[in-house]
Amino acid sequence: MSYLRGNAIVGQSGGPTAAINATLGGVIRGAMESPAIDVIYGAFHGVEGMLKDEICNLNEVFADPADLVRLSHTPAAALGSCRKKLPAVDDPDGESTYAVLFDFFRRHNIRYFFYIGGNDSMDTVAKLSAYSQRVDYEMRFMGVPKTIDNDVAGTDHTPGYGSAAKFIATTISEIVRDCAVYSVKAVTIVEIMGRDAGWLTAAAALPAVHGEAPDLIYLPERIFDMERFFADVKAALEKHPNVVIAVSEGVRLADGRYVCEAVSSGGKDAFGHVQLSGTGKALELAVKERIGCKVRSIELSLPQRCASHIASATDLAESDLVGRSAVKAAVDGESGKMMCFVRAEGEYAVTTKAEDIQKIANVVRAVPDAFINEAANGITEQGIRYLLPLIDGEVFPEYRNGLPVHFIIPRG
Amino acid sequence: MSYLRGNAIVGQSGGPTAAINATLGGVIRGAMESPAIDVIYGAFHGVEGMLKDEICNLNEVFADPADLVRLSHTPAAALGSCRKKLPAVDDPDGESTYAVLFDFFRRHNIRYFFYIGGNDSMDTVAKLSAYSQRVDYEMRFMGVPKTIDNDVAGTDHTPGYGSAAKFIATTISEIVRDCAVYSVKAVTIVEIMGRDAGWLTAAAALPAVHGEAPDLIYLPERIFDMERFFADVKAALEKHPNVVIAVSEGVRLADGRYVCEAVSSGGKDAFGHVQLSGTGKALELAVKERIGCKVRSIELSLPQRCASHIASATDLAESDLVGRSAVKAAVDGESGKMMCFVRAEGEYAVTTKAEDIQKIANVVRAVPDAFINEAANGITEQGIRYLLPLIDGEVFPEYRNGLPVHFIIPRG
Repeated sequence: MSYLRGNAIVGQSGGPTAAINATLGGVIRGAMESPAIDVIYGAFHGVEGMLKDEICNLNEVFADPADLVRLSHTPAAALGSCRKKLPAVDDPDGESTYAVLFDFFRRHNIRYFFYIGGNDSMDTVAKLSAYSQRVDYEMRFMGVPKTIDNDVAGTDHTPGYGSAAKFIATTISEIVRDCAVYSVKAVTIVEIMGRDAGWLTAAAALPAVHGEAPDLIYLPERIFDMERFFADVKAALEKHPNVVIAVSEGVRLADGRYVCEAVSSGGKDAFGHVQLSGTGKALELAVKERIGCKVRSIELSLPQRCASHIASATDLAESDLVGRSAVKAAVDGESGKMMCFVRAEGEYAVTTKAEDIQKIANVVRAVPDAFINEAANGITEQGIRYLLPLIDGEVFPEYRNGLPVHFIIPRG
Repeated sequence: MSYLRGNAIVGQSGGPTAAINATLGGVIRGAMESPAIDVIYGAFHGVEGMLKDEICNLNEVFADPADLVRLSHTPAAALGSCRKKLPAVDDPDGESTYAVLFDFFRRHNIRYFFYIGGNDSMDTVAKLSAYSQRVDYEMRFMGVPKTIDNDVAGTDHTPGYGSAAKFIATTISEIVRDCAVYSVKAVTIVEIMGRDAGWLTAAAALPAVHGEAPDLIYLPERIFDMERFFADVKAALEKHPNVVIAVSEGVRLADGRYVCEAVSSGGKDAFGHVQLSGTGKALELAVKERIGCKVRSIELSLPQRCASHIASATDLAESDLVGRSAVKAAVDGESGKMMCFVRAEGEYAVTTKAEDIQKIANVVRAVPDAFINEAANGITEQGIRYLLPLIDGEVFPEYRNGLPVHFIIPRG
């Protein structure tokens, strides 16, 4: 491969995480350190910003390196995000979109393209990389994964997952303590994000190492059987009065319907809309009806992806690493690849490698069978051993006025 | 007052907080340091444990002082809680309850009674203190306030509030960042605890000092007008696309109905139950109907009272102080009192004083008018200045396996 010198652009896409800015910081650091890259530009709102020429010069924004540290402790995409899906490369109607983008790249002498995102974002990288083969303009395209869902193929785990898992595990351990204070029989159902993969819900099992795990954990990788669920809850209530349950929002019945569709179907709001309650709420109503004890449900909701104050130090360090290594790989000649983590045997350690993005994009990686217990209501020891290193280590963001300091990238 | 020597008992009651164990630690430290107190007993589940003789010797449990530090970083009542209301002192049917309790006190030579709780718990202290006047057994009764709601009269603020406020303010600032990533118009409604008083919701205003406050804040101290609310939301959407709203679960319409009762009245679940959605969900549906933009709602839920990992250092220190000072006041001769905080003029500092509990019990302290803006949709500068010192300072609990270490009091 030839030595390619020019400018670079980085964008963020998809749902935010607590670590996506640590990865952005890694890309910026990597670009600043590389003699092949003159200017690292940031695109506001991913490819949307490239289509509209809304960019900033990140060398100037981060002239003070202390701001890169603040950035890594700032939740959600500091450059803004988008959910834009590029047209198919062969689609004649899509031609104009690609023309605008490659005109943008040429005008700014952009030779390196880094895109930080989940499965959909890897699709964008794959398409741009494929399209670039037809264009007489040398460029390198690298995908840098991030998603709290941990469901991207090809990598041991995804940046962003460890911090979400640490928030979930910490919050579950606090909820378990909170539930333990009363002596009256009560069921608490915690609904956790993850439509298709149960990685986030599996993290609820981690407080088991301190004796503070939920009694029951249900992942979307297994069919959810209402009768077996009631039997599980009754058995747990016989053991102790305060039963805590973690359930993925994405659990489905044998007929393929989501539990929340199946259980709360009749409700309409004041405007006549059918009201779809969440999975936790649906199970709350079902337990109230069938078991009759005190029951409540909690949705962990948005903080799962933005609680940067309780980020995993391991996750932030790895998120920085994957950003820097993406720059290095691109400068070394890689293109059309996504950076992946490879876990070492034995004591926990990761290295990075670039994998062909065409093989990775649009594949959902489920929690492996070996991590789910036979009764389909808990996580195995093997699963806990795999997950535990990902939440290791605490971060100490800067606080002012009792609140964490976030870094905001100014808009021109 | 005579010098009274004997044993002491401490109980916890009402809803848990992230600081209630710091106060328990303060009472234990105070008792261990006092020559008037031989043994400090802990009652499991408040007065219920005293009625059933379920107690533990806290001098033995906390033989290692490091465990008192771990205790202060443990959320929820470590001794367990209860919601038992004692019968009226004049109620002849209640006589047997008091007889059992005072027999319990005599048998264990308990001369000092410390009760950590909210308004209902102060009622318990007031009744026991009143009843003790009829009994030939000298005892001293002290209430130590704790509630995330900050609605107890007689004190500048309550232990436990600062930590809940810090969790809320931190989480709001993270949600504001998360909401800022997309350029599509969207409204995010955050529902915050507090049926009768808006203190917790007011804490959502604190990130204003970092430019990260919600656009609109609604407290139960003001009548909630749906039309004015829609006008507020429309005006906010004209300023920027990502509107964040904080609302108390307890807001009511002019006719006295809760907003959640009024807006989502028709819905029934699969079992035919009328389904009362929360206030946030009700307003989400209303905004969808009337304004039509993307809208979602988030309930901060239980972590508001148990997120000890993000406790306020000021709150934990003051919670310890109020526990120790309750012991000192009792040994010095006070009884039938609640420990209160007095805020100094000028730079933030608090001292404690004992106030007559009969005047305090069952009074709800609302957010003062001067803290709420004229439009009834925000918090004033004066309010922010009052609240800010209460969330100041960070705590660093011990972590193992990436999770905070909690201290569990063993049951015999």
